[in-house]
Amino acid sequence: MRAAVLRDGRMVYRDDLPDPSPGPGQVLVEVTACGICGSDLHFASHGAKVLAATQSMSGSPSAQASVDLGADIFMGHEFSAKVLQAGPATDTFPGGTPVTSIPVLLGATGVEPIVYSNTTVGGYAEKMLLSAPLLLAIPNGLDPRHAALTEPMAVGLHAVNKAAVAPGETALVLGCGPIGMAIIAALRNAGVHEVVAADYSAARRKLATAMGAHRTVDPAQGSPFDTVTPKVIFEAVGVPGIIDDVLRRAPVGSRLVVAGVCMEPDTVHPFYGIAKEISVQFVFAYEPAEFAASLRAIAEGEIDVAPLITGEVGLDGVSAAFDELADPDRHCKILVTP
Amino acid sequence: MRAAVLRDGRMVYRDDLPDPSPGPGQVLVEVTACGICGSDLHFASHGAKVLAATQSMSGSPSAQASVDLGADIFMGHEFSAKVLQAGPATDTFPGGTPVTSIPVLLGATGVEPIVYSNTTVGGYAEKMLLSAPLLLAIPNGLDPRHAALTEPMAVGLHAVNKAAVAPGETALVLGCGPIGMAIIAALRNAGVHEVVAADYSAARRKLATAMGAHRTVDPAQGSPFDTVTPKVIFEAVGVPGIIDDVLRRAPVGSRLVVAGVCMEPDTVHPFYGIAKEISVQFVFAYEPAEFAASLRAIAEGEIDVAPLITGEVGLDGVSAAFDELADPDRHCKILVTP
Repeated sequence: MRAAVLRDGRMVYRDDLPDPSPGPGQVLVEVTACGICGSDLHFASHGAKVLAATQSMSGSPSAQASVDLGADIFMGHEFSAKVLQAGPATDTFPGGTPVTSIPVLLGATGVEPIVYSNTTVGGYAEKMLLSAPLLLAIPNGLDPRHAALTEPMAVGLHAVNKAAVAPGETALVLGCGPIGMAIIAALRNAGVHEVVAADYSAARRKLATAMGAHRTVDPAQGSPFDTVTPKVIFEAVGVPGIIDDVLRRAPVGSRLVVAGVCMEPDTVHPFYGIAKEISVQFVFAYEPAEFAASLRAIAEGEIDVAPLITGEVGLDGVSAAFDELADPDRHCKILVTP
Repeated sequence: MRAAVLRDGRMVYRDDLPDPSPGPGQVLVEVTACGICGSDLHFASHGAKVLAATQSMSGSPSAQASVDLGADIFMGHEFSAKVLQAGPATDTFPGGTPVTSIPVLLGATGVEPIVYSNTTVGGYAEKMLLSAPLLLAIPNGLDPRHAALTEPMAVGLHAVNKAAVAPGETALVLGCGPIGMAIIAALRNAGVHEVVAADYSAARRKLATAMGAHRTVDPAQGSPFDTVTPKVIFEAVGVPGIIDDVLRRAPVGSRLVVAGVCMEPDTVHPFYGIAKEISVQFVFAYEPAEFAASLRAIAEGEIDVAPLITGEVGLDGVSAAFDELADPDRHCKILVTP
């Protein structure tokens, strides 16, 4: 079968891979669409750093530690697919059923995240394995390309849930990449009255409005905190300096949710946080129930993800798409449709 | 009257000050005891830095910004006192009543914290002004020297309240200075089943046990996280590096409460916090109701503060006491008894 794999920091097209073979409890599926995630771009450029950071930390899942950067790596964790064939003694949906799943594969050797792996195929491929107990049928005849955005939208929903935002609270979203957009959509869907989005890109600000922001601000015109007094701030940028800037400028008692993944060491002034009793909630991924709720919200039309999809490529176009995603004025989410 | 004032970074004894004169709503009191707080030591050494940090931050009270470091500065915010004389048209307790108060003076020009001031006298003095509406009578014949510890104990209670610690959760307290001790006492008083305290000083660890820690660990023997799996971590050290070490070693989903006041820039790896979804709550001071609850807990014998008091000096001994407090094996809380 065909796939796009990470090799020496670049995405490479291959058409010589064997079809994966489903074990008990697993289902072979045909990938319909798979979104390209910023974390995949980051891993492609800084894989060694990601692995080192994961290994230097105690108390976290170490599954990723076994990735060999010298060998081809499968990626792609924002997918929708069609059921092809169940493994031995496995009950699942009939062949052809459109499905999605949290990116986790249950196998004989345990639980493996479908994120970066030398062996477990991800969504940048013609076919992949999923776990029968985790499959969700895509309801309401929803466009499977839209269903592929269940995963990033679940990240936004989770961030909003962790922040326990009340409808009357003003929320400020810093950074309007896909995760910022997912947060904006989840805030709006939760009935929050004032959602303000900040991004340097005019195209992104326009998209933020389409996704539900009541107001947008351009940080090039001055700090968002000059004109917004948020109770909750979502940091979806993930570069050094942002957290400290929020601590310095945010209102007394505000809550910062860190959803941007900054892999670099970062400098903060704890005194700013202390003097204003700011809380900082780091967030990551989502609960399975949030993934299901995200699919439901898209299928019910509560959240329209169509504006986020700014491009579509085949497996042989993944490498070029990784390059193009560097331009925020041109792209938000590119789907790979094998 | 007599007082100890901060002059050019050192505490200086003076006996040539006029008695403060109470305005409407104010009460002149005679100070019975005043605890020396670590923040006073810090301000004595790094006053310019404290003021600069406060000024560089938006959204925080700027009352402290007007302190002139070139002139004498009054300090002392952990006090108990006796009522001497009410200001004009002011109802208060009868003369001689033992009282305490949150360190705030309400005056004609507004609200002034009793913390660092060129004009508002603090507890390192024979007499000071307090606000009639804020006065709390010291109940149950409680030793007024113990009542002077209401303030630091309220800081600990506030940190524990902000963390919303459940009795079944394991709490780890890093640093057994007065604030760490106050946190330990508040955790124990809240019925938390497992309170673990970490400090390099054997004397401090012994004191932590006296204040309610179920177990203590010596960080020189290895990271506390090697033997403790806390749900809530209280950082009461306040030096650079501690926050990042907690992010790196703390269990998935744990909560960090930052009660130590680090004035330096600090380096953290946001990735550690993200991968483990750690929450960081910066805390500062307390609510007036927590101050009152702290006094009640001491007066009812729920919290015994006596072990914390390791020294007592007159106003002419404040300067030497500031120096002595540098040795954690010798001292925890020194009271100034004018």
